[in-house]
Amino acid sequence: MAGPIPRRTASTMTNRVPPTLPAAVDESRQWARLMGMAMLGEIPGDGVDRAALTLLDRQARRLLIEWATEAGLTVSVDEMNNLFLRHEGLEPGAAPVLTGSHMDSQPNGGRFDGIWGVVAALEAVQAIRDAGLTTRRPIEVVAWTNEEGGRFAPGCMGSMAWSGHSASTTWDGVADLHGTTFRAALEEQMAAEADLPRRPLGPVGAARPSAYIEAHIEQGPLLEADMLDIGVVTGIQGSRWFVVDVAGRSDHAGTAPVSLRQDAVQEMVRIVNALNTLTHDPADVLRFTVGRVEVHPNTSNSVADRVRFTIDLRHPDADILREKGDAIAGTVQAALRHCTATVTERFTAMPTAFQELVPDAVEAAAEALGLRSLRMASGAFHDAQFLVPVCPSGMIFVPSRGGISHHPSEYTSPEQLAAGTRVLAATVWDLANR
Amino acid sequence: MAGPIPRRTASTMTNRVPPTLPAAVDESRQWARLMGMAMLGEIPGDGVDRAALTLLDRQARRLLIEWATEAGLTVSVDEMNNLFLRHEGLEPGAAPVLTGSHMDSQPNGGRFDGIWGVVAALEAVQAIRDAGLTTRRPIEVVAWTNEEGGRFAPGCMGSMAWSGHSASTTWDGVADLHGTTFRAALEEQMAAEADLPRRPLGPVGAARPSAYIEAHIEQGPLLEADMLDIGVVTGIQGSRWFVVDVAGRSDHAGTAPVSLRQDAVQEMVRIVNALNTLTHDPADVLRFTVGRVEVHPNTSNSVADRVRFTIDLRHPDADILREKGDAIAGTVQAALRHCTATVTERFTAMPTAFQELVPDAVEAAAEALGLRSLRMASGAFHDAQFLVPVCPSGMIFVPSRGGISHHPSEYTSPEQLAAGTRVLAATVWDLANR
Repeated sequence: MAGPIPRRTASTMTNRVPPTLPAAVDESRQWARLMGMAMLGEIPGDGVDRAALTLLDRQARRLLIEWATEAGLTVSVDEMNNLFLRHEGLEPGAAPVLTGSHMDSQPNGGRFDGIWGVVAALEAVQAIRDAGLTTRRPIEVVAWTNEEGGRFAPGCMGSMAWSGHSASTTWDGVADLHGTTFRAALEEQMAAEADLPRRPLGPVGAARPSAYIEAHIEQGPLLEADMLDIGVVTGIQGSRWFVVDVAGRSDHAGTAPVSLRQDAVQEMVRIVNALNTLTHDPADVLRFTVGRVEVHPNTSNSVADRVRFTIDLRHPDADILREKGDAIAGTVQAALRHCTATVTERFTAMPTAFQELVPDAVEAAAEALGLRSLRMASGAFHDAQFLVPVCPSGMIFVPSRGGISHHPSEYTSPEQLAAGTRVLAATVWDLANR
Repeated sequence: MAGPIPRRTASTMTNRVPPTLPAAVDESRQWARLMGMAMLGEIPGDGVDRAALTLLDRQARRLLIEWATEAGLTVSVDEMNNLFLRHEGLEPGAAPVLTGSHMDSQPNGGRFDGIWGVVAALEAVQAIRDAGLTTRRPIEVVAWTNEEGGRFAPGCMGSMAWSGHSASTTWDGVADLHGTTFRAALEEQMAAEADLPRRPLGPVGAARPSAYIEAHIEQGPLLEADMLDIGVVTGIQGSRWFVVDVAGRSDHAGTAPVSLRQDAVQEMVRIVNALNTLTHDPADVLRFTVGRVEVHPNTSNSVADRVRFTIDLRHPDADILREKGDAIAGTVQAALRHCTATVTERFTAMPTAFQELVPDAVEAAAEALGLRSLRMASGAFHDAQFLVPVCPSGMIFVPSRGGISHHPSEYTSPEQLAAGTRVLAATVWDLANR
C-alpha cells in the first residue's frame, strides 16, 4: 500500500528456530480456544459481538486468565484494564518482549479479529515452555482495552493511554448507545476484577519492552490472492476519524414546502456528494467511509432536524492524509445549503513505519519455517502503531478468506492460524534471547 | 395547495349559532386539560412523546374518560381500541354526529397535534350541554387509535379499520423498535381496559354517523401568515409511503478498496440523488421526504451492509401522485451501482375532497361567530380522510405558530384554540339538529 518495499535477501536473515518449538505449537488447542472464545458473544452466521468492558468481555478475560495461570504465567492489570500475562525470563529485570492484541470485537464481528492475536501470544509462550525452552528476557502477553471502538469511540484506547499518546482520562465522557460512559464502564470492570494484581500504567521502569509484536488476521485479500502464509507488516496506514453534526429544523413531511425546509438528511446527502468528490482517488488507495448515520427524530413523516454521521479517512501517505483530512471541514461547510454543521476530529493516527528489528525477525522466522511471506503495509490500524514510539514493533498477518473482516463470515483456517503462531513463537523466542 | 377554491358567498350560508353557546366554551378549562394531557409524556422544550398503546396513552385515555363521565357522556371502546364518548340525542336512534381526532403523538411531538381535536370535541359537547341546549341527533366524541404511526407504521390504523378501508388484522405483525407487535400492544391495552363497555367495530347500524368533523392545528403557515382564525378544510392531499431496503456487503473501512465495495450508505446517497431528480417540482407542491434512516452495523470503521430508509411522497393531484409514486421503484433500481434494493409501499392514501356539507357548515359557523376563515386543503393526512367514504366529513384548522408541528415548539394560543372550539361547537350543534 505504501509502495514496493525492497525484500531483504536471505543472507541477512538469522535462522535460529529451535527444532522442538514448531511442533510445540498446538493447532488443535489454539483452535479449540478460539472457538471457546467465539461462544462468548456468539451471533448468527459464526459471528461474534463482544464489546469492550461488558460482562462477555469479563468472561472472555477470565477464560484467558484460567488458561494462562494453568500454563504458569502470572497475571496483572493496569488502570486502563489492559491485561498482562507474564512468562518470567532468566533475567527477570531485563526488558520484556511484549506480544498480544485485543479481545473486543465489532458489533457484527467475526471470530478472529483481535482475539487470535491474544490466543496466539499465549500459545506461543506456552509452546516455548512446553518445548522446554528458556528465554533471557521475560515475555508478556497483553490484551489491550477497547481496540475496536465499536462501543466507545475511538478504538485503541488501551494502547493509546499505555503508550502515553493520550491521557487515561481522555475518554471519560464518551458514552455508548445506552448512555453509559467509558469511565463508568471501566470502573465497573475494574471493580469486577479487584482480585487481580494491579500494575502501573505504561512502559515505566522494567516494564518498558525491548520489542512488541502483534499477530492478526490480514483483513484484506493480498495473502490469499497470492497463496502466501505470512504477511510481514512493515507499517500501518494513517487514519483520521471525524464526526459531522448537521443541524436543521424538523417539519411536517406533508405540509412544509421542500424549498423552505432545513432538512438534515438532504444536507447529509449533499455533504457526502461533496466529500466523494474530495476523496475521489483514481489510484483507489484513499479509503473514505461513512459507516455510521444517526437521524433525529428518525420518523418517516417528519423532516429530520439533526443528523450525525462519521467519516473514516485512511491513506498510507502522511502528506495526502493531512491534505485531504484538513480539507474535510471546509468541504462540509461549502456543501451546506439550508442547515448548519460542525465537524469534529475524533481520532488521528498518522501513517506508521515499523523499525527493522521486528519485521526482519518475522521474515527470518517465516523463512526458517519454510513459509511463504510477503512484506506489506496494514490497511487497518492496530494497537501496534501506538507502540512504535515506545519500542521496536511489528506485526504478523495470516490470510483472511475473501479479504473479509468485521463480519461473521471472517475466516482463517486452523492450519493457517497455527502457521502464524509458529512464526510468532519463533520470533518471540528469538527476540527474547537477544 | 390544490389550487384556489371559490369562496362561497355569505348569502348561501346559514347562521344558527345559539347565543348561549360561544360563551359556554370554556377557554381556561380547555387549556388546563391540554396542559394536563401534555404532562403525560412530557419531554424537554414543551414537547410530548406519547406513543399509541403505551402506559402513557392509557393514562391519557383514563383522564379523558374521567372528564367525559363527569360531563355526563357514556364510554365505549371497539376492538381497535378506538374510544367513543356519547352525548345522547333527543332521538337516540338517529345517526350521530361524530367528532374527534387522536391522542397519540410523534416521538418528538408537541402538545396540540391530535389531542386538541379530542379535547375540543369534548369541550364542544360539554358547552352544548352547559348552555342547556339539546340536539336531535346523538353526538359521539372519538379518539382514533394510532394516527401518527410513530411507533407502529403506518398511521391512521384505527380509522382505517373502523371505516373498512383495511381489515383490523392488517397490522398484526408490525413491530415497534423493541420488537413488540401491534397486535400484542393492542391486546395488552384492551386487557387493561376490560372494564370499559365494548361496541362493534365500524359504522354499523345506528352507529353510522350523519357527519364527521375533526378539529386540528393547521401544521402549516397559511393561517398565521394571513392573520386568520379558522381553516375550512376542503380536502386532504394524497400520501404514499415507501420503505427502501438496500443490501450490500460489510467490509473493513481501512482495507477494502473503495472501488470494490458494496457500500449501502453510498448506495442510499445515490438513490436519494436520483429521487431528488424524480421529485423535483418547480411549483414546490410535491412533498418528498426521507425522514428515517437505519444503517447496519452502524459503526464508524465498517462499510455498511444494510440501509433501510423511508420515503414520504405527497401531492394534492391524484394523477401526479400516482405517476411519481409509481416511478419510485424504477428510479431506485436504475440508481443502483453496487448493491441490491427492494422497495415496498407501506401506505397509500389518494387525495380526498370533502363533500360540501361539513365545510359549508364550518364556514357558516365561523362567519356567524365573526371569525376570519379560509378554505384550504390539508397538507398532512388525517383520520378524516378515511371517513369520507362513510359520511360527509370535514375539518377545522386553527393557526400553527411558524407553521411548525411534529416538534416540541408546536404552539397555538389558548384564544386561538377556544375560537376553533367555538366553531366546532356551533358546527356540531348545527349538524346534530339537521
